[in-house]
Amino acid sequence: MEKVKRNERIAIMTRILVGSPNQSMGLSGFCQRFDAAKSSISEDIAIIDDALKSQGIGRVLTTAGAAGGVHFRPCGQPKDNLDFLSELADALSDPQRVLPGGYIYLSDVLSDPAVMRRMGEIIACAWQDIPIDFVLTMETKGIPLAMMASHAMGLPLIIARRQSKVYEGSTVNISYVSGKGSIESMSLSRRAVHAGQRTLIVDDFTRDGGTAGGLISLMHEFGIEVAGLSFMLAQSCPPRKPIEGEKSLLVFAGDGVEQPVRIRPAEWLSLPLRKG
Amino acid sequence: MEKVKRNERIAIMTRILVGSPNQSMGLSGFCQRFDAAKSSISEDIAIIDDALKSQGIGRVLTTAGAAGGVHFRPCGQPKDNLDFLSELADALSDPQRVLPGGYIYLSDVLSDPAVMRRMGEIIACAWQDIPIDFVLTMETKGIPLAMMASHAMGLPLIIARRQSKVYEGSTVNISYVSGKGSIESMSLSRRAVHAGQRTLIVDDFTRDGGTAGGLISLMHEFGIEVAGLSFMLAQSCPPRKPIEGEKSLLVFAGDGVEQPVRIRPAEWLSLPLRKG
Repeated sequence: MEKVKRNERIAIMTRILVGSPNQSMGLSGFCQRFDAAKSSISEDIAIIDDALKSQGIGRVLTTAGAAGGVHFRPCGQPKDNLDFLSELADALSDPQRVLPGGYIYLSDVLSDPAVMRRMGEIIACAWQDIPIDFVLTMETKGIPLAMMASHAMGLPLIIARRQSKVYEGSTVNISYVSGKGSIESMSLSRRAVHAGQRTLIVDDFTRDGGTAGGLISLMHEFGIEVAGLSFMLAQSCPPRKPIEGEKSLLVFAGDGVEQPVRIRPAEWLSLPLRKG
Repeated sequence: MEKVKRNERIAIMTRILVGSPNQSMGLSGFCQRFDAAKSSISEDIAIIDDALKSQGIGRVLTTAGAAGGVHFRPCGQPKDNLDFLSELADALSDPQRVLPGGYIYLSDVLSDPAVMRRMGEIIACAWQDIPIDFVLTMETKGIPLAMMASHAMGLPLIIARRQSKVYEGSTVNISYVSGKGSIESMSLSRRAVHAGQRTLIVDDFTRDGGTAGGLISLMHEFGIEVAGLSFMLAQSCPPRKPIEGEKSLLVFAGDGVEQPVRIRPAEWLSLPLRKG
């Protein structure tokens, strides 16, 4: 086998690490792949990490010990995140997006994988210091964002359904009060999750936390702790907060009828973050 | 500004390109970012492409002309894809996965972002030579796979709904005959797509193409051509093929009642592919 040069090793390792964010990989796998010494691979990793860090486009971090390895953390600069979300907030504040009942047309944004990936990375980094076992969402509109968040976190995505389905096996079903005051139901496969796990709820939109409240009740049925919530767009002053420590990306005020809808990045995004 | 070394440029460019598959990026953006000559950047790109190609983990391709630029194509080796899918097929053939009615429990696989990403890349590469404007799926279970396929293709994801929703704006609704013979409906926002576009249908499962037939009818209403279909798991000998040129990843035979369910990679995956 021809020896792979450092330049090439860096391209290959960066491709593999970036393709699977927050998935730990053993250094020995890279040593074997390149027939290289562990010290060389460690130097390569240090070069990649320095380079990404210098540009604010992620980190490649090493964890020691038996379960140790190296993983890509897709965290950008807080300022870049804020610029990205500010631009999006302006676009979403367009009055033409307001639908009857004060709803906002978001489907085109939710269907853009580049935007969803970027938001998924911001969510992943917002919760990176909290132990979480899976991402939870409620069908349907929140799935693309929740999928990209779970991909960026290297965690499974669990999707609650409105009704139990034959292909889910046996399910747990609950009723909850929606934001509009009606009684709705949601359902989750009993095989999907386990007591004692911790979850992050990700969804596209919340006005008053009705669906989120339902998801929290559903998790209680399974003995699972809700560690946090992130919405793409949340009401800026909701009548009740579903749980403390919600970190949404955008917040809105106004109903599009009496007051125009105004959307801006959530406040926590402007606060200085701890270094990762 | 300190000059960025080639090693570091390679790590940075690989991270950016791999993060946004099949999204064309101008070389001049990289020249500005690194304050480097176009010839140096072109050499970097050639090194990255050679390295990824040598390992069968993708390509970095340059297109010339006004709309030209460089993009990452996340195509692996046919043999690696086949190995990956064979292993998954064996796991899915476990009799414990068979549910009443001959359904197969797939939710845990559909909730694994690493598996979905890999499958999304295989789908993206299967259709890379065909012009496609967006990926289409029907809610709910197929969305994670369709999302990862659309991400790998750098295209929007459009999700048809069972019912029209207020936050979709005005919609087009159709009725179709499901595989079980019942009349179902599906709905799509009129803003979502445009006449003359071409779409790839991606879904998790098909037995007899009922839902796919509905999606094709829905696209006819919009004047959109269905260029292809890819399912994660399709019946190996369906009573009718929805359209020619379907490329699914896994096929199954048996109903889990009279015959055991057997799952294997689809045949086209074993055929030699043209070089990309």
